[in-house]
Amino acid sequence: MDIHALTRQLFVKNDSKIVMYVADGLGGLPQQPGGLTELETAHTPNLDKLAKEGVCGGSIPVALGIAPGSGPGHLGLFGYDPLKYLIGRGALEATGIGFKLEDGDVAIRANFCTIDAAGNIADRRAGRIPSEESAPLAIKLREVKIPNVQVFVEPVKEHRFVIVLRGTGPNKGKLGDAVHDTDPQATGVPPLAAKAANAESQATAQIADQFVKQAKELLAGQPKANCLTLRGFASKPSLPTYEQVYGLRAAAIAVYPMYKGLAQLVGMDVVGAAKTLDEQMDVLQQNWAKYDFFFIHFKYTDSTGEDGAFDAKVKRTEEYDAAVPRIMALKPDVLIATGDHSTPSMLKSHSWHPVPTLLWAKNCRTDACEKFGETECLRGGLGQFEAKHLMTLALANAGRLGKYGA
Amino acid sequence: MDIHALTRQLFVKNDSKIVMYVADGLGGLPQQPGGLTELETAHTPNLDKLAKEGVCGGSIPVALGIAPGSGPGHLGLFGYDPLKYLIGRGALEATGIGFKLEDGDVAIRANFCTIDAAGNIADRRAGRIPSEESAPLAIKLREVKIPNVQVFVEPVKEHRFVIVLRGTGPNKGKLGDAVHDTDPQATGVPPLAAKAANAESQATAQIADQFVKQAKELLAGQPKANCLTLRGFASKPSLPTYEQVYGLRAAAIAVYPMYKGLAQLVGMDVVGAAKTLDEQMDVLQQNWAKYDFFFIHFKYTDSTGEDGAFDAKVKRTEEYDAAVPRIMALKPDVLIATGDHSTPSMLKSHSWHPVPTLLWAKNCRTDACEKFGETECLRGGLGQFEAKHLMTLALANAGRLGKYGA
Repeated sequence: MDIHALTRQLFVKNDSKIVMYVADGLGGLPQQPGGLTELETAHTPNLDKLAKEGVCGGSIPVALGIAPGSGPGHLGLFGYDPLKYLIGRGALEATGIGFKLEDGDVAIRANFCTIDAAGNIADRRAGRIPSEESAPLAIKLREVKIPNVQVFVEPVKEHRFVIVLRGTGPNKGKLGDAVHDTDPQATGVPPLAAKAANAESQATAQIADQFVKQAKELLAGQPKANCLTLRGFASKPSLPTYEQVYGLRAAAIAVYPMYKGLAQLVGMDVVGAAKTLDEQMDVLQQNWAKYDFFFIHFKYTDSTGEDGAFDAKVKRTEEYDAAVPRIMALKPDVLIATGDHSTPSMLKSHSWHPVPTLLWAKNCRTDACEKFGETECLRGGLGQFEAKHLMTLALANAGRLGKYGA
Repeated sequence: MDIHALTRQLFVKNDSKIVMYVADGLGGLPQQPGGLTELETAHTPNLDKLAKEGVCGGSIPVALGIAPGSGPGHLGLFGYDPLKYLIGRGALEATGIGFKLEDGDVAIRANFCTIDAAGNIADRRAGRIPSEESAPLAIKLREVKIPNVQVFVEPVKEHRFVIVLRGTGPNKGKLGDAVHDTDPQATGVPPLAAKAANAESQATAQIADQFVKQAKELLAGQPKANCLTLRGFASKPSLPTYEQVYGLRAAAIAVYPMYKGLAQLVGMDVVGAAKTLDEQMDVLQQNWAKYDFFFIHFKYTDSTGEDGAFDAKVKRTEEYDAAVPRIMALKPDVLIATGDHSTPSMLKSHSWHPVPTLLWAKNCRTDACEKFGETECLRGGLGQFEAKHLMTLALANAGRLGKYGA
């Protein structure tokens, strides 16, 4: 089922306000069987109160057993089927550094590498060149000139950078993204030529090869980063906007470029320049009148989980909880607290476990949950549900969906 | 969603061991409302301990309200969408008696019947001829010779037998299976001619008619079984293998031909020749190093349910439980205990009720379940889920699935 086929047809507009308050990687695991998770360990009086008044459940980001990356994790929360809408790796990398892709752009992940005198790769990551050395080299590559293409080069980190190709003149809107990686995944052999997988991507492959040729000249003599490989060619994904599918004017309040970028892909306005959660709440307050929907992203429940830092994740969860009263003071009609996936500190990685989720609204049907936590959510009224259904629930609870059928 | 599109892309290999321990027809019903089911009545200390440490739920074999046969029941557990992959009746009958179908084979369920002097059917089941009488007749039909076809005839039980057509020469790989039944489902009329439903099956229909013609000559003078009808023409289903979709070397340890056959259809090796559950555990131990995944099938929770024998099913469930320590002694990474469907002894048949399921693994997120049983599983962390997702959960818990998307 395409949920948007329903929401497009049924959405109505009103003055309600919906807040989706996302703690990245919120779900966790206990340190020993039968123990408490990070969220269950944390003192979260504000979320507990909302869980008691609202309705809880477990969100399945993509499908049972599937651990998602940030892209599919957020698309699911935004109500975009993460199995239907794919964000290619190049496009996600560009998004993650805050590059605003336009329709028709092809984004590429590029790696500096070291080649020997014979042209064979000696080090696939250019000796893990530090960012201070690699960034000026990436910027130098902006000197590459190719007819009928606007070329963007952006440093990322260490040996990684991003190239974006934007067709102009006869190439405008004509660059396909079906080009194979040029990284041979081995040393002792030269980088591969760019090879198109379909006719629409022939021009892209030729442009990529021209880029590499000129880049090698610009990098000649560099001790480490004297060549490059290209991976993850990907066009900007074509996603309908929040306005189109939900009739919502949506704002994103995030600190990190990745989440601002993901929100922009679905047509949200990125507002403010907050660096802390408290500043994010200031931005929320300042923009309250201008939007219907607010996506607030909190990163540190994920990063502490990735670090394997159980206690730090507990503290960050308490920080996330402590900001809740500032949201509630604005009197939203619907508040959703959830995560894009679980990041148990015991696993130090994203995982497949369902994500504790609460929905608070005047007309939600309250369940028996007394507080917010993984085990408690198992007896929640939302049951276990695929994340892509959350936005429909948000709209319904905001009185923003008409009846289906007569 | 095709789950295998995900698992094919995401699977990784490691040294983990996964055991799927299936009690056929495991789910049940109480003898009176409010009572305990067979599983809840049984003393199952080993499963109870795993339920407490692991995560439980209810497996829906196909869809809510649908009682499956053994074919779709097991395909679901194996992670093959039972609504997408169909095993035709002829193919299942052949599989069930241990006949190893090859690609391109067409299997047919055949019934001996009695015709009168006018050629009309007098008895559709040949007076329910006993197996001792019918088996030699089926074997006699191996004398049928048809050009460019290898013909196999295998006795099944009473009036039932199986015919397998394997094209040779110009017929190799060319025999379609879209042929209508020749059983008119009535007496007083002759058997129907075989009629193809598409061009690719014309040759099959002609071969079937030739078979019947020669068979009638071989059966002439038989008092009961002097003719035959054909039903359920079906090619060997084309299923991707466990190695292809999960990257698993899989072994099946079963006593009955049907379950060995179903496992072979998905590329499992059938190992050992165990006749008892204890022998099955010997085989498991002997093959532990050679495989990644083990399917162990225990039949008697189903057959006692089919017999309507509540107490016998309770005893068989205890037998199933008692073998658990032998599995756990091998230190599997993931153990799943479940059934392919419910067979409540109160119904004496397969049913649609969700099947109690437990998954035990180091990083599963434990729930509040204290023991293994239908009611207890309702508060399990797996919720109620379609059986086809179980393999993805198994792989995730074994660390054998990479992240979806970046």
